[in-house]
Amino acid sequence: MIESRLTELGITLPEAASPSFNYLPVTLHNGIAYVSGQMPKVDGEVRVFGKVGGEVDLETAREEARICILQGLACLKAALGSLDRIERILKMNGYVASARGFNAQPKVIDAASDLLVQIFGDAGRHARAAVGVAELPRNAAVEIEMTVAFGD
Amino acid sequence: MIESRLTELGITLPEAASPSFNYLPVTLHNGIAYVSGQMPKVDGEVRVFGKVGGEVDLETAREEARICILQGLACLKAALGSLDRIERILKMNGYVASARGFNAQPKVIDAASDLLVQIFGDAGRHARAAVGVAELPRNAAVEIEMTVAFGD
Amino acid sequence: MIESRLTELGITLPEAASPSFNYLPVTLHNGIAYVSGQMPKVDGEVRVFGKVGGEVDLETAREEARICILQGLACLKAALGSLDRIERILKMNGYVASARGFNAQPKVIDAASDLLVQIFGDAGRHARAAVGVAELPRNAAVEIEMTVAFGD
Repeated sequence: MIESRLTELGITLPEAASPSFNYLPVTLHNGIAYVSGQMPKVDGEVRVFGKVGGEVDLETAREEARICILQGLACLKAALGSLDRIERILKMNGYVASARGFNAQPKVIDAASDLLVQIFGDAGRHARAAVGVAELPRNAAVEIEMTVAFGD
Repeated sequence: MIESRLTELGITLPEAASPSFNYLPVTLHNGIAYVSGQMPKVDGEVRVFGKVGGEVDLETAREEARICILQGLACLKAALGSLDRIERILKMNGYVASARGFNAQPKVIDAASDLLVQIFGDAGRHARAAVGVAELPRNAAVEIEMTVAFGD
Repeated sequence: MIESRLTELGITLPEAASPSFNYLPVTLHNGIAYVSGQMPKVDGEVRVFGKVGGEVDLETAREEARICILQGLACLKAALGSLDRIERILKMNGYVASARGFNAQPKVIDAASDLLVQIFGDAGRHARAAVGVAELPRNAAVEIEMTVAFGD
């Protein structure tokens, strides 16, 4: 059903990018999926670099946030077999590489939250923390991690 | 009992502030409450702005940390019906907007930890991480999230 | 068995450092250990100060990351009685105090991930987020927290 919802929304999930380092995209334990911090990769590459409020504008950052979520969902699909096993998005942590004086992190991360609610409905509504960090891996603008409840 | 403890301590919980963005203050799953990053809002507004160690001094930052906790408890009360259902504060993540060279994040966040222990006793004793971030939403000085165990 | 693995690897765990502030090194609930953000302390003291990519070079930062893990394992041993009760490292969050323009946080935190896999094998393979923060407590270069599944 989530797959057909993605089709309705015109969303195609990317390939789940393999981490370039020694960690797993997702671990599963006791009905909880721990999703690694997702980079905004398209075709395996980060394409937008710099600080939001500096080199990166708000709309571009919001698109990067959406890309992080699509990567995360691709990883969840690979780990769970199907996105239909997702019962609830419990928590999201959004890290925004922030230029000095940029304080609209919630507007950036809201694009990710909106996308989850579009896709999953009420099951996509989550708790969240959004903070502005000094630097992100590969000079990405946004990184997002999730905690997700799943069933059989 | 926690309510009477709050009265003893002279603490009145604020109204639980509704998030201004598309997320929930708290999600509940399998006995765990995931509490969103709390802003130090009084009457729905952040009132202290800037970096700790810069525009914001240590004592003011500590008071902001306490306000984050009161907001978090107000949200937990709204989600659980009663704070008496809280079994244990498991984890706190404290983000301190930090001026260059400010490294006393633990002193800031300790005000939040002390308050939880005052209110909940041993059940308020938690694991914690405190870090210094570049920028926070609304130019707040402190943001705090929690993971909390609850029962019936 | 993990103890003999540590001996094989020539690793001696340090004393579990007591937090200097009002929190616990580890909380346990329902088979999950929440491990506080670990500082790279040797004999109870942080010894390397500054930002990675600035005063602190990559190799030194990687060693600091390993020290955080040893501290975390010492705390887990104290909390669980034995490291053999660890079933899985579920999640690691690595915070790297980052000089402007330093974006190799994953290379720093990979030293921590590698060490966990060396010690625990597949059970040490975890989800992870690595971010670059503005400042860390005591001007440390690295701070690492973990979420760990354990059994009887």
